[in-house]
Amino acid sequence: MDYESIFKSAIGRLHQEGRYRVFIDIIRTKGSFPNAHCFGGNGPKPVTVWCSNDYLGMGQHPSVVEAMETALHEVGAGSGGTRNISGNTHYHVELEAELASLHGKEGALLFTSGYVSNEAALSTLGKLLPGCVIFSDELNHASMIAGIKNSGCEKRVFRHNDLDHLEQLLSECDADLPKLVAFESVYSMDGDIAPIAAICDLADKYGALTYLDEVHAVGMYGDRGGGISERDGVADRLTIIEGTLGKAFGVMGGYIAASRTIIDCIRSYAPGFIFTTSLSPVLVAGALASVRHLKASSTEREAQQAAAATLKKKFAAAGLPVMPSVTHIVPLLVGCPAKAKRISDVLLAEYGLYVQPINFPTVPRGTERLRFTPGPCHSVEMMDELTDALVEIWARLELELRKAA
Amino acid sequence: MDYESIFKSAIGRLHQEGRYRVFIDIIRTKGSFPNAHCFGGNGPKPVTVWCSNDYLGMGQHPSVVEAMETALHEVGAGSGGTRNISGNTHYHVELEAELASLHGKEGALLFTSGYVSNEAALSTLGKLLPGCVIFSDELNHASMIAGIKNSGCEKRVFRHNDLDHLEQLLSECDADLPKLVAFESVYSMDGDIAPIAAICDLADKYGALTYLDEVHAVGMYGDRGGGISERDGVADRLTIIEGTLGKAFGVMGGYIAASRTIIDCIRSYAPGFIFTTSLSPVLVAGALASVRHLKASSTEREAQQAAAATLKKKFAAAGLPVMPSVTHIVPLLVGCPAKAKRISDVLLAEYGLYVQPINFPTVPRGTERLRFTPGPCHSVEMMDELTDALVEIWARLELELRKAA
Ligand SMILES: Cc1ncc(COP(=O)(O)O)c(C=O)c1O
Ligand SMILES: Cc1ncc(COP(=O)(O)O)c(C=O)c1O
Repeated sequence: MDYESIFKSAIGRLHQEGRYRVFIDIIRTKGSFPNAHCFGGNGPKPVTVWCSNDYLGMGQHPSVVEAMETALHEVGAGSGGTRNISGNTHYHVELEAELASLHGKEGALLFTSGYVSNEAALSTLGKLLPGCVIFSDELNHASMIAGIKNSGCEKRVFRHNDLDHLEQLLSECDADLPKLVAFESVYSMDGDIAPIAAICDLADKYGALTYLDEVHAVGMYGDRGGGISERDGVADRLTIIEGTLGKAFGVMGGYIAASRTIIDCIRSYAPGFIFTTSLSPVLVAGALASVRHLKASSTEREAQQAAAATLKKKFAAAGLPVMPSVTHIVPLLVGCPAKAKRISDVLLAEYGLYVQPINFPTVPRGTERLRFTPGPCHSVEMMDELTDALVEIWARLELELRKAA
Repeated sequence: MDYESIFKSAIGRLHQEGRYRVFIDIIRTKGSFPNAHCFGGNGPKPVTVWCSNDYLGMGQHPSVVEAMETALHEVGAGSGGTRNISGNTHYHVELEAELASLHGKEGALLFTSGYVSNEAALSTLGKLLPGCVIFSDELNHASMIAGIKNSGCEKRVFRHNDLDHLEQLLSECDADLPKLVAFESVYSMDGDIAPIAAICDLADKYGALTYLDEVHAVGMYGDRGGGISERDGVADRLTIIEGTLGKAFGVMGGYIAASRTIIDCIRSYAPGFIFTTSLSPVLVAGALASVRHLKASSTEREAQQAAAATLKKKFAAAGLPVMPSVTHIVPLLVGCPAKAKRISDVLLAEYGLYVQPINFPTVPRGTERLRFTPGPCHSVEMMDELTDALVEIWARLELELRKAA
């Protein structure tokens, strides 16, 4: 059996399609993010990061850093065990209480990542509800897709944010079967938002549970950072809210918030929760400080919204093909993996501006794009520099500009 | 649909079987581990931890803590992105090179946990090798079982460490199909060791790839902490070696080491690697310091082996039912979930000694046990205190003692 050639040809397919990924090797500089250094040919060179999901710069916030330093010195590096076997620290207990309160739920449960929280929660829910049918938005994240697949449940995919289609599928389903509607609030590659209340109406009408991924909204929307479900006043209508500690909260880890009973079920039955070393208490302490800070402060959220509005306006004024996002995410459509990579390469090599090309399987083929995430730490000067560079590259590569808006 | 009662009855089943898990809420004290504090009724009280998988106490090692503090101040809390989108820091690149060298492989790849590394690597390998049959030891960890299941491959389970049975299954399989043998080196609940060389012989004979989980061996066996495969001089015979950064290395995270091509394939195709925020650089820096330290120092390994030998001898001399482990793991057989929990409860409440009962699904029903992990930080006095407490409880609960060895 020639295993090597099978593996080599798998890699060859990626090169052929122009979507072989080369990781850009960077080191951020705490205190001056989005500035960072990029390693490569001739040693580290300074770059500005335009594609981080540390959306609010909380990864360098003094209270987060201080909380982590304190925990590091008080308890050490790792938890040393699974949650059940010596890895349940008091930090974990406190953060779960804080997250439950953030979403107005009875309980919350931490996982090592948002990916694992989606995979573990959805697959376990499906297994606990015999015959359950899961209704899944077609743009749901890979981690939700994995959880739904591993649940073994029947899956019905509804067109993105399409209420009529969802209702059609719900109405076609046997009324006696358990049902779950799984979707996101902010879709991170387009920057659009789900009609949460209307989806909950349908779920109520057809007796379905609801599962909402707020990964790209927690910390950033709602008066206390509870996400779009808080902003829209509908958190209590959702059965389960899922989030991450690795994006706006600036650290790492994931969680779900739900009723006491459901939390107890996932805690007791999900292999992805049970059989793994728990989050390092250092991370948990940092996340706790971050969640608490963003519960009390709206400064970062407001600055982020302002930055996104400004950058969208600048892109549109320059005729760059900015996609119609209603959130903090600013995607530019390119539509070809090789061109997206080329633009990104030139930006990095000649301008010291770092934005990663987004290609399949993260977005559908033909919608390859550059995805910018301006935040409170990006200045107007940085935005001007970026816009000018893009216009120059667009001309050089003979890409089309729109009529300036 | 009465969802609440379905969830409630799932929890009820656990109570009935006496295996509902209550997490003990502790806080370790850096510098004086295994001492910790336990939260409960009347505020925190001091306890000695006997069941941590921070096997060598590296979670409090000054060079690990210092490396984490430095990284925290240089780059901040989190990576802010997936490995592909701004989350590939120079720390990640360096640690992967260090781990590749530890196992004598061309490359290595980091994951957010050992669980995720097994799930992602095995499921992806299986998908890349059409028709692959996976041969799996019956005691393989839940994360390997999940990966094998999610690969969609045909699975053949061989009896634990049983070479004849493995050969029988391999010989019955179509010679033209791709094959993979997946197993562990140290089995963490019994403390026995796989016959790695002999399994590799069979794999060679039948043209199978090999996948070895060294989670409970890395850092602790081999002259540089490369695991049992290093100790036995067979690392080069294994296709893939998997490990964790959360146990002997004292931090958090997981990895695989393999050929350049295989690493590139998993990196490029595994959803559990691609679609998740990368490990915090703070953790990566700590793990890097830990791996480097244990590559150079055998002091911790030797002290751990000495502690385990002493504790086994003391248990045996007292007639306690110590199971026949050949490693650092010291399990006492109880055989009943309720009794195992009772012993653990009394130890904690009356003696301030913390060891978690291990029950189904972590071990088979009827083999419930207490699992002790003595290490360099446990003194002989602590071992005497523990042995005396156990003997007293054994008598009080009218459990059988063996004839003292
Ligand atoms: C919608 C969505 N859900 C879940 C995740 C996973 O979260 P984490 O990065 O914490 O694993 C991501 C991105 O990584 C995401 O975009
Ligand atoms: C054999 C084995 N493999 C993998 C894992 C998972 O490693 P991690 O704790 O890093 O997720 C564990 C325990 O947690 C284990 O015992």
